[in-house]
Amino acid sequence: MSYSQADAGNWSRSVASMDWTAVGALTPELKDKEVLIRRQAQTTRPMGKNMAFLVVREELFTVQCLAAPQSAGVSRRMLKFVAGLNRGTIIDVIGVVSIPRNPIKGTTQQVEIQVRKLYCVTKAMPNLPIIIKDAVRSDVEIANALQIFRQFLLSEGFVEICTPKLTAGSSEGGSAVFKLDYFGQPACLARSPQLHKQMAICSEQRRVFEIGPVFRAEHSYTHRHLCEFTGLDVEMRIKKHYAEVMDLVDRLFVTIFDSLNERCEKELEAVGRQYPFEPLKYKPKTLRLTFERGVQMLKDAGMEVDPLGDLNTDAERKLGQLVLEKYGTEFYILHRYPLAVRPFYTMPCFDNSLYSKSFDVFIRGEEIISGAQRIHVPEMLEERAQACGIDVNTISISTYIDSIRYGPAGPHGGFGAGLERIVMLFCGLDNIRKTPLFPRDPRRLAPLKMF
Amino acid sequence: MSYSQADAGNWSRSVASMDWTAVGALTPELKDKEVLIRRQAQTTRPMGKNMAFLVVREELFTVQCLAAPQSAGVSRRMLKFVAGLNRGTIIDVIGVVSIPRNPIKGTTQQVEIQVRKLYCVTKAMPNLPIIIKDAVRSDVEIANALQIFRQFLLSEGFVEICTPKLTAGSSEGGSAVFKLDYFGQPACLARSPQLHKQMAICSEQRRVFEIGPVFRAEHSYTHRHLCEFTGLDVEMRIKKHYAEVMDLVDRLFVTIFDSLNERCEKELEAVGRQYPFEPLKYKPKTLRLTFERGVQMLKDAGMEVDPLGDLNTDAERKLGQLVLEKYGTEFYILHRYPLAVRPFYTMPCFDNSLYSKSFDVFIRGEEIISGAQRIHVPEMLEERAQACGIDVNTISISTYIDSIRYGPAGPHGGFGAGLERIVMLFCGLDNIRKTPLFPRDPRRLAPLKMF
Repeated sequence: MSYSQADAGNWSRSVASMDWTAVGALTPELKDKEVLIRRQAQTTRPMGKNMAFLVVREELFTVQCLAAPQSAGVSRRMLKFVAGLNRGTIIDVIGVVSIPRNPIKGTTQQVEIQVRKLYCVTKAMPNLPIIIKDAVRSDVEIANALQIFRQFLLSEGFVEICTPKLTAGSSEGGSAVFKLDYFGQPACLARSPQLHKQMAICSEQRRVFEIGPVFRAEHSYTHRHLCEFTGLDVEMRIKKHYAEVMDLVDRLFVTIFDSLNERCEKELEAVGRQYPFEPLKYKPKTLRLTFERGVQMLKDAGMEVDPLGDLNTDAERKLGQLVLEKYGTEFYILHRYPLAVRPFYTMPCFDNSLYSKSFDVFIRGEEIISGAQRIHVPEMLEERAQACGIDVNTISISTYIDSIRYGPAGPHGGFGAGLERIVMLFCGLDNIRKTPLFPRDPRRLAPLKMF
Repeated sequence: MSYSQADAGNWSRSVASMDWTAVGALTPELKDKEVLIRRQAQTTRPMGKNMAFLVVREELFTVQCLAAPQSAGVSRRMLKFVAGLNRGTIIDVIGVVSIPRNPIKGTTQQVEIQVRKLYCVTKAMPNLPIIIKDAVRSDVEIANALQIFRQFLLSEGFVEICTPKLTAGSSEGGSAVFKLDYFGQPACLARSPQLHKQMAICSEQRRVFEIGPVFRAEHSYTHRHLCEFTGLDVEMRIKKHYAEVMDLVDRLFVTIFDSLNERCEKELEAVGRQYPFEPLKYKPKTLRLTFERGVQMLKDAGMEVDPLGDLNTDAERKLGQLVLEKYGTEFYILHRYPLAVRPFYTMPCFDNSLYSKSFDVFIRGEEIISGAQRIHVPEMLEERAQACGIDVNTISISTYIDSIRYGPAGPHGGFGAGLERIVMLFCGLDNIRKTPLFPRDPRRLAPLKMF
């Protein structure tokens, strides 16, 4: 076996004594300094027999390198090697930073590296099937949105929990679950951490959240559905009113949007170059409308809507337009949904039990969050489950009701959201498959990302 | 339907105008102030016909409340109600803070509440099957260890990623996977994010980590195995040597241990009251031993070990003892494992290909982390897969090798650990089922935690 190629890249002696400089850190202040950089050869361009240009890329940053015999250590053989480098090859370059007379076009860094030495770390294939571009840096927004979400909740006294994704029977009594065999017992993948986060509240936790995978076996090929996505789930004790949960949503998401606009300026620009979009319009204090009011606005605009039914996608889009025209925001909360269209564990309104203490949140006319106060009285929970035709004797439902009974919980509520959908709509992307590293839909299970 | 009980708790008028005080915040400075507290009635004790004591618990804190007719608003009827409260009932108590003449035994707070008003928020059952105790606050350590791990990595320039748990075929070509049907395709739950985190490194990420569920269909009933646990996974570019990965493990875990000891003093005490344990012995700079040296130590102690085989549980425990005696630490790294006992993608050593650039980390004689430099040369990866008898044509293995080929990656490595096992061993618990909120083992799929 020959392990020399690998070890050579990792162990080249000339390199061993120096530290690497990031391409993004190559600025005119480093003039005349010798530096070592490692990353991808992006383009190479021979200039006659005496010179060769090479652009090295690291993350969002690129720098031009010049190999010419007047530089110490550069031979004809090296020039030929540079000209023949396959795009994507990982290289170590040792060279001196210089400032060219004319500004360099097409690279992010305004210095040039006079090449002294060059090592191949990993050879790329002559024709790569994938070329890294500036865009689709939505991964970065994903990572950032995640940290902002978490930091905000931690600062408000929430505890992060990890609940199991393998559950007995079929969770929430719902359909569209992935089923599997668990050592001879029927099991399924959790459609949400709903029941477990409530159980955490039934124990001694005041406020909890979870960031984790959520599984939906929906045979759905729309632009906004995935079969596996990153769920953001929150549950908290309520002191007086379900508005406390909406207050949290309001502050949390305004903080996320503000921070993304501040922290991810470069990445948002990069996404915008490939997929142009308008920045999201939102207010420092999020607009809240009751469902009744929303239905009235749709009726006034000539749309027929069932006042006690759910809104379909068209109605949601239309309402988004009407809200934008009237209130100048693309982010708002619609609350007091009809009881009949919400899950059985949703708390009915005190003053009118046709409505419920629940809400949805919309970005650019599409739903991103669903939340509510939950029923914390076991007898009422059983009554509502039966009214909704749910079998209270299945293991997941009976253990759920038992945990509310034994806990016991006290008033509480929360919400769930999908990270990928938030990022898609914030960035105005037309397809949710552009946000995660490895999207999963009914046809896509293999690792590579393609669209 | 009667929703009055639920709404009453949530909406009681007298309560609506006041804010709640946390039980833990009830200190002598609040003397003579009127406060409102909400939480569990833990014990009630009538004192003749004229008084009743009540202990209210919130998280780790308890306070004694006294209902006596001399307090304004307290009637005989209320005394009877207090005496009859079921343990665990959630109540709202309005009362005045007083300082008793004699110190109160058995509660954490050294004040007493003179009850004025008392409301039932949620009634508990007469006999609860579960009683909350001080111990098993390992949930708190779980949550804290999680944040310390994440904060440290973020501060070192790592990006948090979310990779799919649903994968095609059977991941890593290994056994012990949960299999399921994915819209007619065979799929399985990821045994680790190994391949995906490497692919992230093949793209433009320098350093990544993931915290997420990991699934092992192992028919194992030991004290340290779970079928679903929280995986802590790290992958990073290596500049010069796989020691860079061990350096990170060293600094990361010493930070976690230091921070847990500082931040979780109360919780560690509470765990220790129920399950007494000795604090973990570790050094500011973590001990590193080569596998060869470890084998020699075992041989010197009279144990027979295969110098190119793996260590069994007994050998690991014994070595843990020997290391503690000789070096005074219960936390150390064993590296340069025999190549034959590591996964096919592990980089062999340059100087001796019988060994590999890999390591395991031990706490109290048990393995908690496994890490290595990975092979970043596609031809070598194929060669090693074949040598290990792995079919390079299965979809998961071929897409894995392709991503190393097309990326390409450059030298990189990382490690994986299980959060629950770290917490178990740090707290000296005898069973891993005592750490997560909802443990999963071959017999346990339903939500409640019992041991």
